[in-house]
Amino acid sequence: MAAPTKRPHVVVIGAGFGGLAVGRELADEPVDVTIIDRNNFHTFLPLLYQVATSGLNAADVAHSVRAIFQKSERVHARLGTVTGVDWDARTMQIDEQEPLAFDHLVVAAGSATNYFGVPGADRFAFPLYALDDAVGLRNRILEQFEAADRDHSLIDDGALTLVVVGGGPTGVELSGALAELFDRVLRRDFAHLPVDRARVVLVEMEDSLLTPFRERSRHHAIDALRRRGVEVRLATTVESIESDRVVLAGGETVPTQTLIWAAGVRANPLTEALDVPTGPGGRIVVDDDLSIPDREAGWAIGDIAHVVEGGRPVPQLAPAAIQGGELVAANILASIQGRPTRPFRYRDKGTMATIGRRSAVAEIPRAPALVGSLAWVAWLVLHLYMLIGFRNRVSVLVNWAWNYLTWDRGPRILLRSPRTRHVQNGAG
Amino acid sequence: MAAPTKRPHVVVIGAGFGGLAVGRELADEPVDVTIIDRNNFHTFLPLLYQVATSGLNAADVAHSVRAIFQKSERVHARLGTVTGVDWDARTMQIDEQEPLAFDHLVVAAGSATNYFGVPGADRFAFPLYALDDAVGLRNRILEQFEAADRDHSLIDDGALTLVVVGGGPTGVELSGALAELFDRVLRRDFAHLPVDRARVVLVEMEDSLLTPFRERSRHHAIDALRRRGVEVRLATTVESIESDRVVLAGGETVPTQTLIWAAGVRANPLTEALDVPTGPGGRIVVDDDLSIPDREAGWAIGDIAHVVEGGRPVPQLAPAAIQGGELVAANILASIQGRPTRPFRYRDKGTMATIGRRSAVAEIPRAPALVGSLAWVAWLVLHLYMLIGFRNRVSVLVNWAWNYLTWDRGPRILLRSPRTRHVQNGAG
Repeated sequence: MAAPTKRPHVVVIGAGFGGLAVGRELADEPVDVTIIDRNNFHTFLPLLYQVATSGLNAADVAHSVRAIFQKSERVHARLGTVTGVDWDARTMQIDEQEPLAFDHLVVAAGSATNYFGVPGADRFAFPLYALDDAVGLRNRILEQFEAADRDHSLIDDGALTLVVVGGGPTGVELSGALAELFDRVLRRDFAHLPVDRARVVLVEMEDSLLTPFRERSRHHAIDALRRRGVEVRLATTVESIESDRVVLAGGETVPTQTLIWAAGVRANPLTEALDVPTGPGGRIVVDDDLSIPDREAGWAIGDIAHVVEGGRPVPQLAPAAIQGGELVAANILASIQGRPTRPFRYRDKGTMATIGRRSAVAEIPRAPALVGSLAWVAWLVLHLYMLIGFRNRVSVLVNWAWNYLTWDRGPRILLRSPRTRHVQNGAG
Repeated sequence: MAAPTKRPHVVVIGAGFGGLAVGRELADEPVDVTIIDRNNFHTFLPLLYQVATSGLNAADVAHSVRAIFQKSERVHARLGTVTGVDWDARTMQIDEQEPLAFDHLVVAAGSATNYFGVPGADRFAFPLYALDDAVGLRNRILEQFEAADRDHSLIDDGALTLVVVGGGPTGVELSGALAELFDRVLRRDFAHLPVDRARVVLVEMEDSLLTPFRERSRHHAIDALRRRGVEVRLATTVESIESDRVVLAGGETVPTQTLIWAAGVRANPLTEALDVPTGPGGRIVVDDDLSIPDREAGWAIGDIAHVVEGGRPVPQLAPAAIQGGELVAANILASIQGRPTRPFRYRDKGTMATIGRRSAVAEIPRAPALVGSLAWVAWLVLHLYMLIGFRNRVSVLVNWAWNYLTWDRGPRILLRSPRTRHVQNGAG
């Protein structure tokens, strides 16, 4: 805990791209910063699907928040979940802890999965939005293959059918990685199982994948996935999900016991505890300068904020969160010093998605779309660069090199729940 | 599942050092081999303590059993827990699965923690004998530091006091690694916490650590641990363990909420389901050739077997398990071909333990004991060599180099339980 001080106290909720940017920008300024997260680590969300498909270790995409700010005396990390805010008193509640006072509060808690009310989705679908989701999905896939290996009749029940709902970057990347995992790795691991019968079905309600991308990229994605054996079902909506099947629009049924929901996000439901004005997708409505209206000391950035620029919402991408964090850090300093704040201007850095080995699409503003090997190399380099921590970069590079050279995937282990003391819910 | 065949079917329970040795030796012989384990991976037990102390990733010490035997058409892996054996019918029960027929059964299921009836131990002590133990202990340590950081008064209650019971190699290695973790890493992570007050207390009932080692090694271990700040308590027994303290012989109480039990092992309690004769520590009594008396098709190797040679029990070390696996593979082939079996002869390869950075002890038969840096380098090289899988070796090497060069530890992440579908205990 920080020693008592007269420096203004900036509290940041969330250690994602946006929250870390705020901490980094304020590290050498005359303020104290506390970054609160429900995990003690930053999660590199763009590579979660590689943990789920046994390509990377869980720890490769996680980095201790305390380690990131070890050298910044004024930036502190705190583990916990925010349960309430008193904007007038400028205090907040974290779990059962003593209330925490703040001078400025930056909400950067990101998104959660949006099931859009599809029946059964919240019970039976797997989300892929946190490290425990990714480890859980990896376990599920390996368990299903083990079960089918013991009893091939389970294949008819959909034990080896993975349905991915949502044809955006996450759905495309996951589908491609699953197809390669089945075809290149599990086919060799399970020599007596007819792995040919394993299916990856990608369901998208629009008539194209990667709808925000240009036509050339969209075609490349569909072709590349189909070449890898992914069943791409366009213009198809999900009616309902049951424990052993998914029902598509029109009544068609696909037997599956593993459906991953990558079809949409909404704001982290934490907003409900924050007493803030919300708009589309439950996101926090903000002013031009990313301050929350009528919450004088409040700011919101990244996926949890609904930011409109030039009449269009700013996309929910890491660069937008980082840019928001940088601006809010500057605007907080401006407020403290009595200077006017600046409005948010989104600088579009482009967007990319990888389909699999030597296949990706990349779009940079005012340049032709890149598809194929070159886009794939660009994707690898950019993601290595964006990863936080030298050790994580080396580890990811080692795993990627291993996967590329051997067609193998290392960490395909079925990790049980970490054991806790028996007293966990008792006297301890 | 293997196609029907007339080759004899050898079933191995346990994918530890012994079980894998059986599989490797029989891979090119005219038999089918099935290796059953409760995990889908081999766990490299000698490095578990490094996972618990945030030095290595969980996946670094685990290797998929299917991957190990991917190129061996006749060796199969199977996930499950053996629940019973019918020696007359030569069938076994695995969970709820169909009974599995065998011609030879090799029991290689290793050890479990032995609490020797110390009150409270089975409820409140942390074992360190499986990957989920190690991840659970890592979580526990990080949680306790986070809690103490929020409320320093918890330090008085023992939140930062780790008690290790047992001064054998595991207890010594863990104590040294904990002291370095506290002093070098968590001290920097928790800049506002008086980490000086964190304690590592090593409790040993004998009047020396590493009792099977020579005197020079024992002295080195005690000195090196004390230099690192470990409180070494010799000739001290544990009376009882409660949720918030340990009571030592004589009534002295040490407040602690994290006590690790490294004081003894017994045979995996699986033996109870196997209907086999057991001896000291619940271990399976075997004949000279490692066959189980009166269980014609049964064999036992490694830590679960009570092997006596020249009137002395063979030590419970990886080399003994590997040598046992190699002999049993040969003896099974001899039985099948009607040749006589050979008795077990233990070749002592020596033993070693590491205390921390540039400090270890190593003893090789008929050679002077090595202590200090040279022993430490020997320890590193030997353990890298013994690790299974090139990727694991590279990853461990990267982590070790990182730790050595930066004094940092990478994967200090508090991993929650892998998320499962909500239906886990329901319809799914």
